[in-house]
Amino acid sequence: MSDVAAVVDTVRSHDRFLVTTHENPDGDALGSLLATSLALVQLGKDVVMYLAGEAPLPREYGFMELEELQRALPDDHPDRVLVAVDCANESRLGPDPAVLRSARLVVDIDHHHDNSRFGDVNLVGAGASSTCELLRDLFRELGVELTPELAEPLYIGLVTDTGRFQYANTTPKALRLAAELVEAGADVHRIFQGVYESIEFAKLKLLARALDRAQISDGGRVVISHLLRGDFAEVGAAEPYSEGIIDYLRAVEGADMAALIREPPRGNGPSRRVSLRASVDELDVSALARRFGGGGHRQAAGFSSEAPIEEIARQIRAEYTALTSAAAGA
Amino acid sequence: MSDVAAVVDTVRSHDRFLVTTHENPDGDALGSLLATSLALVQLGKDVVMYLAGEAPLPREYGFMELEELQRALPDDHPDRVLVAVDCANESRLGPDPAVLRSARLVVDIDHHHDNSRFGDVNLVGAGASSTCELLRDLFRELGVELTPELAEPLYIGLVTDTGRFQYANTTPKALRLAAELVEAGADVHRIFQGVYESIEFAKLKLLARALDRAQISDGGRVVISHLLRGDFAEVGAAEPYSEGIIDYLRAVEGADMAALIREPPRGNGPSRRVSLRASVDELDVSALARRFGGGGHRQAAGFSSEAPIEEIARQIRAEYTALTSAAAGA
Repeated sequence: MSDVAAVVDTVRSHDRFLVTTHENPDGDALGSLLATSLALVQLGKDVVMYLAGEAPLPREYGFMELEELQRALPDDHPDRVLVAVDCANESRLGPDPAVLRSARLVVDIDHHHDNSRFGDVNLVGAGASSTCELLRDLFRELGVELTPELAEPLYIGLVTDTGRFQYANTTPKALRLAAELVEAGADVHRIFQGVYESIEFAKLKLLARALDRAQISDGGRVVISHLLRGDFAEVGAAEPYSEGIIDYLRAVEGADMAALIREPPRGNGPSRRVSLRASVDELDVSALARRFGGGGHRQAAGFSSEAPIEEIARQIRAEYTALTSAAAGA
Repeated sequence: MSDVAAVVDTVRSHDRFLVTTHENPDGDALGSLLATSLALVQLGKDVVMYLAGEAPLPREYGFMELEELQRALPDDHPDRVLVAVDCANESRLGPDPAVLRSARLVVDIDHHHDNSRFGDVNLVGAGASSTCELLRDLFRELGVELTPELAEPLYIGLVTDTGRFQYANTTPKALRLAAELVEAGADVHRIFQGVYESIEFAKLKLLARALDRAQISDGGRVVISHLLRGDFAEVGAAEPYSEGIIDYLRAVEGADMAALIREPPRGNGPSRRVSLRASVDELDVSALARRFGGGGHRQAAGFSSEAPIEEIARQIRAEYTALTSAAAGA
């Protein structure tokens, strides 16, 4: 039996479901969660939509129809089939493994390359742009009607996981799915405004400071900036507000790489966290991060440091020079 | 004969063409220009690709294969069929109307609503997302093969005119065309990096100043900032670098509108130019602009002023209050 057929079979032969996704959910996680729940309800199933933990949802997804989302595990969860969407492995499901151990059956639907196939039934499509893309194929097999309410969360997963149709996973199939979802009633303008046009004012102020302090070196190929502990308090920003700021530095014309050195606004962790991004395919910033005990991917990596900010910047520039000289000499 | 058939007929029955587009070209203009030229060359035609004026092309399109572009009119232009792409009317073709008057025949291919049908043959598709979308249909009729070299400029027109698949013209047809172009070899990552990831360092510095000075008022619904004459010189920015900055202000969560007050870096014009953007569909900022002798569209408008910056900001807030109170009372 194909993976899709196995999931179809499981859905048809059960009536009660608990649908969940990973902690700190992104657009594909929340889109998959909502779309799966709506599809099962349309099929006449008894569905609880659940997310572990108490952390508030990212506010850019505040416009989604997630009123039914439960943050407490229902008492009858052992009687339900657990459907985990967009989760690469069990540990991403939250702090409470009891959910998985006690579920009647576990269905794992995900598109991550490193999915551990932790379910009793696994639909893992590593070639899919998003979990939402996999779900569309599944819904077709299940005979689920593509209503506007269902098209919207699927589009949210698709548009966010492709970085607004920018990454390499922007395949012809992904774009045709986008077309189908718009045809089915997904409102691209509403989704765009909700997801991409709801920037906190304090985040703009934090961005202003990071951009103002940005410095270029190495003939314009390295862009480095920093945020101080006091910045967060002074502009009224929480730590997650610094996310995405490095992308502005990375986009500088002629840049090979960008680094953002941050002093976390609170906590007992390291004094400084450093994010690295490559602007060109040739550079592997994870190699640079490893020199400082960090890690990551070729294009996005990071490390922690106790050194002063100026010293960290100097070290990054030195390692960039060493790395690119080695490559040039190879 | 349909509009498409008339253009097909004209192409088939002539051998020498002069392809051009509007001054200050955007992505759809340059994409249409290059794609049309390549298609005609593929059909064995003698083609000159021409753009009036001497202004350098926007550098975000510097990665396009425009080496063959001529900025001087060839001597034999009266013998050529003029193909004007993405031009709403003759005046957009540049300062030299001789081009039009002397051409053997004028073909007008465009998607603007207000196209004046200035050609001898007109293919005007106001429902198309972009002129590039119209061209794809034309190329199909002409039997032009969709090579990677042709798919790239068509994709550039499509992605820029839909605002990265954000505006209301992001139709199912536009998205299916995007899919077809990726399939034909358009490299979305290369296009994205070229068009959207080549920000001048000085522009980041200008952005930093505008964001740092941004103020919210009226319960967070109005966001106003300004750029001083000295800012441009201090960060090494030219006037066009301030373009797009207002979009950051407009995107503030909860904002109804944004205003950016600029002192032009040089010149004899008005002391201050004010750009206005609506963040919500309900607000018509052109009504606000008209109060100050300006104009524009519902979502984007502007005016000029001799008043001091603080006074302009005060006036904008007062007019916003008047406008929204009137609407609430209506």
